[in-house]
Amino acid sequence: MALRVGVVFSGCGVFDGSEIHEAVSILIALDRRAAKIICTAPNVFQAVAMNHLTKQPEAQSRRVLDEAARIARGNIRDIATVNANELDALVFPGGFGAVRNLCTFAADGPNCKVNQQVERLMLEMHAAHKPIGLACIAPVLAAKVFGSRNLNPLVTIGTDRGTADAIVAMNARHQNTGETDVCVDEANRLVTTPCYMNSVGPWVVYQGADKMVEQVLRLAGVR
Amino acid sequence: MALRVGVVFSGCGVFDGSEIHEAVSILIALDRRAAKIICTAPNVFQAVAMNHLTKQPEAQSRRVLDEAARIARGNIRDIATVNANELDALVFPGGFGAVRNLCTFAADGPNCKVNQQVERLMLEMHAAHKPIGLACIAPVLAAKVFGSRNLNPLVTIGTDRGTADAIVAMNARHQNTGETDVCVDEANRLVTTPCYMNSVGPWVVYQGADKMVEQVLRLAGVR
Repeated sequence: MALRVGVVFSGCGVFDGSEIHEAVSILIALDRRAAKIICTAPNVFQAVAMNHLTKQPEAQSRRVLDEAARIARGNIRDIATVNANELDALVFPGGFGAVRNLCTFAADGPNCKVNQQVERLMLEMHAAHKPIGLACIAPVLAAKVFGSRNLNPLVTIGTDRGTADAIVAMNARHQNTGETDVCVDEANRLVTTPCYMNSVGPWVVYQGADKMVEQVLRLAGVR
Repeated sequence: MALRVGVVFSGCGVFDGSEIHEAVSILIALDRRAAKIICTAPNVFQAVAMNHLTKQPEAQSRRVLDEAARIARGNIRDIATVNANELDALVFPGGFGAVRNLCTFAADGPNCKVNQQVERLMLEMHAAHKPIGLACIAPVLAAKVFGSRNLNPLVTIGTDRGTADAIVAMNARHQNTGETDVCVDEANRLVTTPCYMNSVGPWVVYQGADKMVEQVLRLAGVR
């Protein structure tokens, strides 16, 4: 039986949604290992819509689920309809959408709030001992959700001092990690990798995402 | 010296722009081989903006260059400013944007018109004996531009009968090709591969894109 993996998108584009290279790298790595992919996203307005050429906010708002559907080729579900019992693992690409739409870390730092449905699904996965993979800045979601419950999560966002300090401030632990390496928290079944937290290119990002997916599927298989 | 490769985007999303998995697969394959990537797109309105969840047209229009900038992480140039003398090769991902925004094939079939700047750059590349790679439906661009000039181009879009017939109607030749295979026209220096013209997943798409990029860089290096 194929392992069933939910991929949680936060829009489409690094400055206001999911980082696209990370998102696609994760899909390639999952499909390469014959996982069944369930794309999902919150059905809410984006915190902001950014013009990616001018890097200025746009007047017109966009919805997270509609934009994420671009990466998913239309095959995507509202996260409110997705439960842990239909998944073997859950994966989050990064991008500013992860900290603007899935939680408010970009604005509020360690005092951020997490989208209610995202938090619900993460807690369901954790309770069922099913792994969660997170790339780039997305590990702050695990730091907040599991740190606030005293579960002592261990994650990496690479080597960025400010973000690492914020992770510790959320009652989580941070591990410095190389560009294509992963950090594995076996107890909490978390796999994290820095991707575009470093100044790298798509090939380095792909390699990190691929290793993260490999470890997530390993943990999903040994439950 | 790194080979310099232009990648021509047509927006961001399979139904109205560049197919995102193809676009990113091409970027990964180029970066893996240490090519210098120059992302570019026409600075024009999209023919249509599609909601990728509902698959219905949206009221608000979008610009090709602005949306393509999402895939390029903001690092992209108006194609009107890009010349063949700064490139060693040119590559086109597919998606409906290639036949809605780069040319009018989706609406007009073999009688389509090609965006003036796209056609100019393709002709400059051909005149300089520099290779052009095209994925998915994008090979119709080469069929139109070079077929109409009696250059006898050979391309593949996989095995789709209707599109293959349209390619022949544009005075070009079509070669049936397997899911991850490439068609190489050595004389015209064209490399084509079907990607999402077949019902495949991201891993098959990546493999086809990777082989296409490999052949494009080979042709660019043997000039």
